Amino acid sequence: MKKIDFSNNKKFMIKGARFSSLCANIKYKNRLDLTLILLEAGSIVTGVFTNSKTKAPSVIWSKKVVKSASKNAEEPIAIVINSGNANAFTGKKGTQAIEKVVLEIAENLKISKKRILMASTGVIGEPLPYKKIIDKIPSLTQNLTENQVVDCAKAIMTTDTYPKLRFKKFKLDKNFISILGIAKGSGMIAPNMATMLSFIITDIKISYAILQKITSNLSDKTFNSITVDSDTSTSDMVLVSTTSNANMKPIKKFSDNRIKQFSKTLELVMKELAIEIVKDGEGSNKLIEYQIIGALNDKSAKNIALSIANSPLVKTAIAGEDPNWGRIIMAIGKSGENIIQEKIKIYFGKYLITNNGRVHKKYDEKKAKDYMKNTNLLVKVDLGIGRGIAKVWGCDFTKEYIEINADYRS
Amino acid sequence: MKKIDFSNNKKFMIKGARFSSLCANIKYKNRLDLTLILLEAGSIVTGVFTNSKTKAPSVIWSKKVVKSASKNAEEPIAIVINSGNANAFTGKKGTQAIEKVVLEIAENLKISKKRILMASTGVIGEPLPYKKIIDKIPSLTQNLTENQVVDCAKAIMTTDTYPKLRFKKFKLDKNFISILGIAKGSGMIAPNMATMLSFIITDIKISYAILQKITSNLSDKTFNSITVDSDTSTSDMVLVSTTSNANMKPIKKFSDNRIKQFSKTLELVMKELAIEIVKDGEGSNKLIEYQIIGALNDKSAKNIALSIANSPLVKTAIAGEDPNWGRIIMAIGKSGENIIQEKIKIYFGKYLITNNGRVHKKYDEKKAKDYMKNTNLLVKVDLGIGRGIAKVWGCDFTKEYIEINADYRS
Repeated sequence: MKKIDFSNNKKFMIKGARFSSLCANIKYKNRLDLTLILLEAGSIVTGVFTNSKTKAPSVIWSKKVVKSASKNAEEPIAIVINSGNANAFTGKKGTQAIEKVVLEIAENLKISKKRILMASTGVIGEPLPYKKIIDKIPSLTQNLTENQVVDCAKAIMTTDTYPKLRFKKFKLDKNFISILGIAKGSGMIAPNMATMLSFIITDIKISYAILQKITSNLSDKTFNSITVDSDTSTSDMVLVSTTSNANMKPIKKFSDNRIKQFSKTLELVMKELAIEIVKDGEGSNKLIEYQIIGALNDKSAKNIALSIANSPLVKTAIAGEDPNWGRIIMAIGKSGENIIQEKIKIYFGKYLITNNGRVHKKYDEKKAKDYMKNTNLLVKVDLGIGRGIAKVWGCDFTKEYIEINADYRS
Repeated sequence: MKKIDFSNNKKFMIKGARFSSLCANIKYKNRLDLTLILLEAGSIVTGVFTNSKTKAPSVIWSKKVVKSASKNAEEPIAIVINSGNANAFTGKKGTQAIEKVVLEIAENLKISKKRILMASTGVIGEPLPYKKIIDKIPSLTQNLTENQVVDCAKAIMTTDTYPKLRFKKFKLDKNFISILGIAKGSGMIAPNMATMLSFIITDIKISYAILQKITSNLSDKTFNSITVDSDTSTSDMVLVSTTSNANMKPIKKFSDNRIKQFSKTLELVMKELAIEIVKDGEGSNKLIEYQIIGALNDKSAKNIALSIANSPLVKTAIAGEDPNWGRIIMAIGKSGENIIQEKIKIYFGKYLITNNGRVHKKYDEKKAKDYMKNTNLLVKVDLGIGRGIAKVWGCDFTKEYIEINADYRS
């Protein structure tokens, strides 16, 4: 993966999208923690949200806005994001806090409340200091500019160690389409709750229904295919918006060939951001791609992939650079998915480890051990019973994870 | 819980049950690793087994024996147990190894192969050195004695730090019934796979069908309600047998009142052994009882209990003695079970932490922090929407767990 040069904000611009971020002292002083993204009239917003049954009010609110987004396209869209406080499990006051923030933005920008989304990340259960946010809204809106996205990528961070940003252009027919994405990761620090947030903006001309479908499909293959510690946040949110500013004929039909081209680049942006989240997972030293093939179906393949990727025993073995394939067998077994032991082929990188229901005759422990020393690992499992496939990215389980999450509560 | 005095084998005797254990050098030298339990003719054996889809051959074999056990009551029952090698994922040779061991015992004891069960625990994927076992069978059978169960409790250990044994008597009508149980825990050490094994023997006169039903029900409430790290072994096995030697009229009907009395004491034996396994879990410093009440139904309650007990974020918070109730909310939410946020009441011990969808007004962080310093903790969640209940026991997640499972592979 290429290193991103964050020095020049101007490289990452989408016509019709403006950004602003500042320090509102929500939890910590003197760090960026409040962001506003404004997309001009005619923009579309789609999204996917956490499946948690203890969803934060911001998730419930923004989900409603996305659902009604197709009906209010004549107005701009605003996305306000705060870090330092998740506003989760805060009772009725949590919902009221959102309403107050949204009302303030609506009046300030003269747009309808129905066009304003909110995302919050940080500590659970503490009241959102919404007055601090409201006080900053005038300067937040005054400072909106096309070239401040790098600061936004920083302002949405909690325990992330670096900002996550991707910008890609591709040619569609004769004109260039841009896709810009920022994300924050699932690093967690006591007493904070991790949250995965990602905001992606493009300028493609496309209908709401088609873009929402693409967002859902690609989220499954990217943001919903990563795992740091199997825990699900109350506040996860991925928003994919477009300013519809590109010079092109709009995409209005699901049969339009250009969808494929667009999806390919969008998937890359989403996948690269998702992988950055895993790499920056707490205490994570290794990135593992789990490839499952030959499963009964795709769902079964993904369950098996997640069962392996989330197993504490597999993750500690990888942290110890130990090619402990017995634990992979255990994790496949505990998934409850249909398998035939004799057909399972496990590969570490290019090395075949098991076949015929036992360790491969030519298995060379030394080579496998050397392979495990890599920072990026591939664990491939061919179940040999069907055509189901899945890819999942995970990390290892280190003492640093325990330290971050147990030892250092302020 | 009372400390068990292991100095006197004679305290733990069941008429009709004989024990033998010795050192067969299966993996390590000079430690007990091979056990034989012989139950006289007329005995009954019931069991529950791992749900893993990568079951070890010993599980598949012993399951069959249990299923046919009701038909062969005229013959004794033999249970052979080895530690040091799980004989799991060893292909056809794994099954052949069992057949050879079983044949040798059958010839030596002159009983049918159908009455011989086998359990194996230890490393996955390495061929079982069955010849070492076969060589020792003559001395194993010669040494069978009624008062050697403490050595058996030691011989089935892998990474357990102490043997687990319970013996209880209770009065049924006019006579005493005895229940003896041993277990090994889910400690794991690279490259070993943990396995939970428990062997319980009583002398009650009871039908196979009734005993099997009791075994299944009580296993759900005890051995299947504990979790160390959410990983499921290929080899878990709980066998509950009776020598039918007690002086009493046999229990033949499900309506028999004495079943309740027996179940009560058996549950206590199974629960105490199960809790010992959690306490001796790798790197475990704290034992937590998760009590869920007011759930939609019992199944939903148990899913929520396990979602909390298995959450790395909850477990690291407990290791850090941090009353981080936000992570409990997160774990309830990620379970996917039906809940109403406003109705959730979380208690740490006697302290009410949340109600009305937010932190309790009288929540005192200092008191909660002090409470978390205890070694035995109670986390109670009242969901307030139904009558479903569950109890699950778990442990914390410490750096020692990572050390044991990542750092020290031989």
